[in-house]
Amino acid sequence: MIDVGRRDFLLSATAAALASGIEPGAWAQGRTAKPLGYAIVGLGTYGHDVIMPQFANCTHSRLAAVVSGDPAKAKAVAAAHGLPSSSIYSYANFDSIRDNPDADIVYVCLPNAMHADYTIRAARAGKHVMCEKPMAISVAECEAMIAACHAANRKLMIGYRCHFEAYNLEAMRLARSGVAGRTRYVRTEHGFVQRDPSKWRLKRALAGGGSLMDMGIYSLQAARYMIGEEPVAVTARESTDRRDPRFHEVEDMIEWTLEFPSGAIAGCQSMYSANQNHVLLMGDLGRIELEPATRYDGNRMWTGKDGREQERTPPPGPGKTQFAGQLDHLARCIVDGREPIVSGEEGLRDMRIIEAIYRSAREGRTIRLGTTA
Amino acid sequence: MIDVGRRDFLLSATAAALASGIEPGAWAQGRTAKPLGYAIVGLGTYGHDVIMPQFANCTHSRLAAVVSGDPAKAKAVAAAHGLPSSSIYSYANFDSIRDNPDADIVYVCLPNAMHADYTIRAARAGKHVMCEKPMAISVAECEAMIAACHAANRKLMIGYRCHFEAYNLEAMRLARSGVAGRTRYVRTEHGFVQRDPSKWRLKRALAGGGSLMDMGIYSLQAARYMIGEEPVAVTARESTDRRDPRFHEVEDMIEWTLEFPSGAIAGCQSMYSANQNHVLLMGDLGRIELEPATRYDGNRMWTGKDGREQERTPPPGPGKTQFAGQLDHLARCIVDGREPIVSGEEGLRDMRIIEAIYRSAREGRTIRLGTTA
Repeated sequence: MIDVGRRDFLLSATAAALASGIEPGAWAQGRTAKPLGYAIVGLGTYGHDVIMPQFANCTHSRLAAVVSGDPAKAKAVAAAHGLPSSSIYSYANFDSIRDNPDADIVYVCLPNAMHADYTIRAARAGKHVMCEKPMAISVAECEAMIAACHAANRKLMIGYRCHFEAYNLEAMRLARSGVAGRTRYVRTEHGFVQRDPSKWRLKRALAGGGSLMDMGIYSLQAARYMIGEEPVAVTARESTDRRDPRFHEVEDMIEWTLEFPSGAIAGCQSMYSANQNHVLLMGDLGRIELEPATRYDGNRMWTGKDGREQERTPPPGPGKTQFAGQLDHLARCIVDGREPIVSGEEGLRDMRIIEAIYRSAREGRTIRLGTTA
Repeated sequence: MIDVGRRDFLLSATAAALASGIEPGAWAQGRTAKPLGYAIVGLGTYGHDVIMPQFANCTHSRLAAVVSGDPAKAKAVAAAHGLPSSSIYSYANFDSIRDNPDADIVYVCLPNAMHADYTIRAARAGKHVMCEKPMAISVAECEAMIAACHAANRKLMIGYRCHFEAYNLEAMRLARSGVAGRTRYVRTEHGFVQRDPSKWRLKRALAGGGSLMDMGIYSLQAARYMIGEEPVAVTARESTDRRDPRFHEVEDMIEWTLEFPSGAIAGCQSMYSANQNHVLLMGDLGRIELEPATRYDGNRMWTGKDGREQERTPPPGPGKTQFAGQLDHLARCIVDGREPIVSGEEGLRDMRIIEAIYRSAREGRTIRLGTTA
């Protein structure tokens, strides 16, 4: 199902509420709100270095627990963040987090192949879930995660931080405003040079795939949120040097074309052998371009008729940082009883397309995307 | 046949000769060289407004005749350029140009569907031929043109002006120099907003196709000359609103992926519904980017690791302008008995790929490109 209407409504309603400073629902009614507590599962680069420092920028979220397979690291991190030892979990005793009322939300920052298991276990432990992207490594896993959260009546949100990033939000707004006219084409590439063959992202069992799972999902997301429609067909090609020790198990470069109901086309790409981070929307009246487009910081944006004529600085996003905006969004959705704007269903939509991209590249033909999503 | 070796040799030999100011062959030996005379066939925008003023920038070429279906226009143009009335031809009496020793070369600036006929007639009249791109509207036509010029022992060159344009030449040199490392990906888009449904470029019988024939061929050329290899497969998708009166007969937007023997991929696109003119090469060490890339003037170029870090101004091209460089190149090839660097065979290579692009889009599958070109 092409769910543009609902999605646009949520985006615009949320954006309006955030921009106006008016808090919808319970918070607006003056409820005393203790920030909700997050348990960070996985103390790797993203969970520890990127996410944990962001609670300092949050209003409605705080760090409540850590989950790690490394007891010494977990102890040191907990101490550094003032957490009691009762807030430290291993993967072995993770399920006992159900007895910790201080942890409202479990944030799954594990390798992709572990997302489903820990999301489902968190939901069964009565916790809401923030799960990093990609949501999982298959459509079947995504469906099981959604079902588990639904059965437990818990919220499920995917860590699509660009929906809380000022440049990307402004680019979406500009695209909808018609400043570029009728959208005909989006071009987006994401990649970086993966150097270390031992990285989990290069192991199929842990990553589920290569650059598409890691960076290509930004291209896929950007194509969808810039065009504001759901694609109806995908045609993909892959190019990987399998003799390269980095790429024995997963793809290096993959390029795919998405066709949208309006006739717009998105040319998307990802790779692990060059640095790129770019989103371009072309309409019949002009363009909106971001480069870098989806970085943690330092993004830039231009509009123009023929090129990068006017550089634009967007208004502030909903949080002090995109990460804080993302963390607080789920906290507020829980308190207000709303669905996150990037829900499990959104992650599932991407995963259906990702499976079709791989299939198209494998079979050398266009894959029509189902009319139900 | 992947003809990289020969092509690279010609490119580098020619570039070296041109850059050094040393004239190979007859000219270098001090032969008194009266500039060769061009007959311009077709006094439309390109032939009249773009090409004719360029003889003022040429060293080895001059205007010798005009061929037009409009007697009044032909007379006025001839007068303005100091040509005698004996140098004016209609399409009816064009073949009598064989008796005009002042016209060495016929430059075919007609609609695409007329390229083959006038090239073949020119060769049979004993004239060398410069033919605008696209070379023709089918592989069969290209083959007939090559055969006719071969039988008449006349040179045939295609008007691929970017091979004489300073920015594109420098971009090719930089790509070969390894400044961007191993080439993994080229992205190139060309298009503009076609507004007038009555234009010949929107009539299938005259244009042979839509944006691909007109602008997409720049993307195709750029992919080939930036990567320096011949593609082995193409996968294409088209998107055209056939209700739009501009696009009743030809395509608006077409996007295609070329796969190269080294594993490099080129994502190419053209359209008639937005302005774009862009070439980007990504290697594992950095990038080379042009935007605008292939305009008559005003092109710009950058290199960088992650983005447009260093803007570059190339050394001068082989002519005062790309057009003069192109016109003089054929004149010198004729005098020196060399093949043009952008010969009929080069035009044929593009036409084989263009036919495969259309076929891939039509059939929704990857088309392998023949190993003979």
